[in-house]
Amino acid sequence: MFLSKLDSLSNAVKLIGDNQRFTDCEEIPIGEAHKRVLAEDIMAFHDSPPFDKSAMDGFALIAEDTFGASNSAPKEFKILDAIGAGDFSSKKVSQNEAIVIATGAPIPEGANAVLMKEYTTADGEDLTIYSQVTPGENISPKSEDIKKGQKILDKNTFIRYQELGLIASAGYDTVKVFKKPRVKLVITGNELVEPTKEEIDKAKIINSNQFTIKAMVEDSGAVCDIIHAGDSFEEVREAVLEAAEEYDVIMTTGGTAISKGDVVLDVVDDLGEILFHGVAIRPGKPAGAGIVNDKMVFTFSGQPVAAMSQFDMFARKFLFEMQGRSFEYDIVERTSQLKIPSQLGRTDFIRAVSDELNAKHVLNRGSGIIRSMVEANSYIIIDENDEGYQKGDLVDVVFFDSLLW
Amino acid sequence: MFLSKLDSLSNAVKLIGDNQRFTDCEEIPIGEAHKRVLAEDIMAFHDSPPFDKSAMDGFALIAEDTFGASNSAPKEFKILDAIGAGDFSSKKVSQNEAIVIATGAPIPEGANAVLMKEYTTADGEDLTIYSQVTPGENISPKSEDIKKGQKILDKNTFIRYQELGLIASAGYDTVKVFKKPRVKLVITGNELVEPTKEEIDKAKIINSNQFTIKAMVEDSGAVCDIIHAGDSFEEVREAVLEAAEEYDVIMTTGGTAISKGDVVLDVVDDLGEILFHGVAIRPGKPAGAGIVNDKMVFTFSGQPVAAMSQFDMFARKFLFEMQGRSFEYDIVERTSQLKIPSQLGRTDFIRAVSDELNAKHVLNRGSGIIRSMVEANSYIIIDENDEGYQKGDLVDVVFFDSLLW
Repeated sequence: MFLSKLDSLSNAVKLIGDNQRFTDCEEIPIGEAHKRVLAEDIMAFHDSPPFDKSAMDGFALIAEDTFGASNSAPKEFKILDAIGAGDFSSKKVSQNEAIVIATGAPIPEGANAVLMKEYTTADGEDLTIYSQVTPGENISPKSEDIKKGQKILDKNTFIRYQELGLIASAGYDTVKVFKKPRVKLVITGNELVEPTKEEIDKAKIINSNQFTIKAMVEDSGAVCDIIHAGDSFEEVREAVLEAAEEYDVIMTTGGTAISKGDVVLDVVDDLGEILFHGVAIRPGKPAGAGIVNDKMVFTFSGQPVAAMSQFDMFARKFLFEMQGRSFEYDIVERTSQLKIPSQLGRTDFIRAVSDELNAKHVLNRGSGIIRSMVEANSYIIIDENDEGYQKGDLVDVVFFDSLLW
Repeated sequence: MFLSKLDSLSNAVKLIGDNQRFTDCEEIPIGEAHKRVLAEDIMAFHDSPPFDKSAMDGFALIAEDTFGASNSAPKEFKILDAIGAGDFSSKKVSQNEAIVIATGAPIPEGANAVLMKEYTTADGEDLTIYSQVTPGENISPKSEDIKKGQKILDKNTFIRYQELGLIASAGYDTVKVFKKPRVKLVITGNELVEPTKEEIDKAKIINSNQFTIKAMVEDSGAVCDIIHAGDSFEEVREAVLEAAEEYDVIMTTGGTAISKGDVVLDVVDDLGEILFHGVAIRPGKPAGAGIVNDKMVFTFSGQPVAAMSQFDMFARKFLFEMQGRSFEYDIVERTSQLKIPSQLGRTDFIRAVSDELNAKHVLNRGSGIIRSMVEANSYIIIDENDEGYQKGDLVDVVFFDSLLW
């Protein structure tokens, strides 16, 4: 009866994908762009380096003049000038002449190599060298990193620290990125109380979902505010309605109520449209999603582990792609250390401890057992077309770390 | 001459480890503890769940009374009461009696199972059931996740979203964590200018290290302020001295100056003690470290890629362990797609594009080529005892992602 209503995970995910939303873009200072997503192509405004640059402290000279120099056959040069970083010399280097040069300074005209100062001795204007260099040695050629006018990064690139450096070098003091999605988390459940070390009233339970789901939202590049609603249709309706006006995405936890079905889904149905409710997955079967005021609403379980798994199955990809970043599970194969039963037609996300070779699922895995998520570092994913695996079989594994922003 | 002064990487890393510093701890609201490190053991103040809890919406009853029930052989029950989430019932369930129960509500006395409402029909006080349940079915037993009084997490645990939920469930509204290290980044170099799309003065170069190193500091769980010094001993000395008074860690970039050696190392030597200067690594040979006012000073190259690699070799572990989090390279073996020459006695961190099976190093890898870090997702590490590898050899690989906080 109930099972006949269940969507497959792939169908539920497709329904969400069909309703993908996107954030606007905004222009922010380059110093704030770490871990944001580019909303523009990056074109270089400058060459980098902007000139042939010394890569060492030493002497700019003509490489050919050094040929044959060694400790037993030193050669003599005349020092013309000195160039500090940020300076340049207007003098030109001719045969057996040298200019003192600092790392980062422009190579003077005429010179084609830099000899490290460790291989020289100097006395006033007189330089003695004890080693030879080849043409181009210790020089970073103009534009070896970036060519002016070239596209160096594509729109939708995730900005790690190295991209940040490249964008700055290209001349960007500000950069266009996608805005962070703003998520409103609506916590339902009359039984929930705040964490406290004191005795808790009978029938009450500490609300942990507010902390885990908010942190998962942040681990998806978004920001999250929280509101607590009770269990009544009116309270939940008001919270969802307000959230749908002011936020980009709504997420709910819990909200099951006696004899009325799931109050949260009733609210979504009343205010908008239900995309699906009930998916053939474990954990998290009661997962749902809908659209209210053109905003996506994810309805998660109150059970902590079910809610976390539902987030990973449905919400993470949505939040990533909302801000222009692609998201696919980074699935790797590992050898299962235990037999894993499953059910045809159902997709399982099984908490597991995995390493470079093996995966061993956590045995105590009720959907309320947060410890099972704490012990785990990965999911073993059992596809709906598989009935489970024997010990020693290769299984699909996704590491939790690979899911993070 | 110069080479004879070089420390091995392992020796340089050991010198830093011998001078490891630690931050104090602080007590913060649980809602702010995501991605912090525990500075106390977590002991459970409560059982979780605090009572035998219904895992489904349905009917609490005696499992044995349902045995044999099916669509073709329904059984009749009497409904005594209803329990919403956050409520409890004072009534006791006897033979062929049932109490309506919501997910999350406490199982009433006498009942030992919950039958999902999908397998029932009700008419006033009369309940008809069409399925059987086993004792304990759809019940989350008291304390199945957390036992009151038990230690559930150790000091020094990194708080992911799942640990956050567990700590909250244990009753902690605040939690003791290690303070984030405060890093002062001293950028030296008269040649450096801010990013701009306008024409740049001759001999000037855009300062990108300030962005990359600050972002790397943040990717190590720490916070970072920046100061720009020039190239002169006095300017750099003042900046380092002030930083050593107000911050936990000092990092510098650049600072090579003509005929004076490395001005930054001169400053460290003047204000405190140099631990090492010059390491047999590529890139980043001029790396140094020292102690000023009992604070660690890392002196990085001005060359962007050298600075990033030096950060990964020396500073990341220090910042992690400073706040109680252990750090080891997560080294995996991959098949090299190219021949890699190296030099005995030198450790190479070679930028590479790696996947589940292979590693292919980036060919254009001068220490100023930021693009080489952008193209890469990993380092191939060539140990000082290796002279390089042939195509097809297994090599040690560290993914950049595995280095992040």
